[in-house]
Amino acid sequence: MIEHTIFLNVRYAETDQMGVAHHSNYAVWFEAARVELMRPCGLSYAEFEKSDYYMPLIELTVRFRKAAHFDDRLSIRVQLKKMPRASIIFDYEVMEEGEGIIASGQTVHAFMNRQERAVKPPKAFLDHLAKFF
Amino acid sequence: MIEHTIFLNVRYAETDQMGVAHHSNYAVWFEAARVELMRPCGLSYAEFEKSDYYMPLIELTVRFRKAAHFDDRLSIRVQLKKMPRASIIFDYEVMEEGEGIIASGQTVHAFMNRQERAVKPPKAFLDHLAKFF
Amino acid sequence: MIEHTIFLNVRYAETDQMGVAHHSNYAVWFEAARVELMRPCGLSYAEFEKSDYYMPLIELTVRFRKAAHFDDRLSIRVQLKKMPRASIIFDYEVMEEGEGIIASGQTVHAFMNRQERAVKPPKAFLDHLAKFF
Amino acid sequence: MIEHTIFLNVRYAETDQMGVAHHSNYAVWFEAARVELMRPCGLSYAEFEKSDYYMPLIELTVRFRKAAHFDDRLSIRVQLKKMPRASIIFDYEVMEEGEGIIASGQTVHAFMNRQERAVKPPKAFLDHLAKFF
Repeated sequence: MIEHTIFLNVRYAETDQMGVAHHSNYAVWFEAARVELMRPCGLSYAEFEKSDYYMPLIELTVRFRKAAHFDDRLSIRVQLKKMPRASIIFDYEVMEEGEGIIASGQTVHAFMNRQERAVKPPKAFLDHLAKFF
Repeated sequence: MIEHTIFLNVRYAETDQMGVAHHSNYAVWFEAARVELMRPCGLSYAEFEKSDYYMPLIELTVRFRKAAHFDDRLSIRVQLKKMPRASIIFDYEVMEEGEGIIASGQTVHAFMNRQERAVKPPKAFLDHLAKFF
Repeated sequence: MIEHTIFLNVRYAETDQMGVAHHSNYAVWFEAARVELMRPCGLSYAEFEKSDYYMPLIELTVRFRKAAHFDDRLSIRVQLKKMPRASIIFDYEVMEEGEGIIASGQTVHAFMNRQERAVKPPKAFLDHLAKFF
Repeated sequence: MIEHTIFLNVRYAETDQMGVAHHSNYAVWFEAARVELMRPCGLSYAEFEKSDYYMPLIELTVRFRKAAHFDDRLSIRVQLKKMPRASIIFDYEVMEEGEGIIASGQTVHAFMNRQERAVKPPKAFLDHLAKFF
């Protein structure tokens, strides 16, 4: 398994008039965590795309338990629990100190090239991942 | 059942460097459709909140079949298939002319007051909905 | 002069915890209006980019007079007051019925290719615009 | 003068199909820097709002010199150069290592209460600031 945790403060622009972080931001936070998980794999996502590989989302699920508020310090933990095949699955937990898990989620991605055609994940990427499984 | 469809063009700001509409926007489009579904129910969501009722998201699911691109004309259809009880469930389909369904999804919401406590949905709201079921 | 007006409702996701539309959205609305102004010019912005032309922002100014609120029906008027040369300047007014002008602004853009080099605007584009000046 | 610098990586969701950070994000980054500038003043912006004070934007200016790209490490420096009176003015510089200043800007804010009426800034806030001028 590969796991990574990032920390962020809820931005003011991310709040809505309910006084909480708008739910659309969780997908953005998940993505930020996913990018950091991939970095120590020796393959930054920026490099990944420069090699003409993309990981478009196929499915997104988010379960919201508690609200996050402006300036809350959150941790976003992402886990890659098994080797990717045609698709790659990441699991997430959003935690706030003293509040525990406030949300959890999952994203399923395909591998695609710039022409939006399905491709196999790059071999170097799989080789890197294989060390962790 | 209650159903409503809105139309929108993908905004430039909604694209990402993959050249497609970023996945986080679908939750925003779902919400825009949901707001319009509620309007003809005799209860705008703006009024709903002024009466101190909120419908926070408990669960969000989105399945992405095809990418949406800048300036694509999309229709977002939202359906309320059964009377809400403790929670209310909306189903969505994002369609593009000539492309069919490009994404589908579901949102599950609770009813809450400003103090973030669970409350029953307002009676006037349920009475309005009851006419459709 | 070329002028175009679009209409939109403030989305819930665009509000912040102050209970108003977050200021970052005005740039997004300006852009949506700008895209529509260009469409009847015989050159959609989507086509524009497919020809490898981009109009990156050089300067953005927004003056906020009154707040916009969730579900407010706004009109965004954009004006191109003179022929572009090395840069192109658009002026904007955000209006709400019964409230008058709630914000105004200006964007200045360069012409660039995908390699982020300054280029002259496409001749077909200038020819189209020339009819209006 | 009071000055503060925050660091952030450009998020994938912040890019657009031009392959650069969309211009609307700079206002969000300015805000994130502003919030951090206020924190060591003994008055978090979250606390500020709980005391029923708001600082709505009156004017936003951003000058874009170079593009920011996905995953770029940016520093956002915010400066408060003079004591606020009826309004408060912040100046910003966005820098990227090895690239120098990529954007600069200014925001002018009023002081307002929840009822959207202009109010004087809180005395405790002014007292804190006075130490720096």
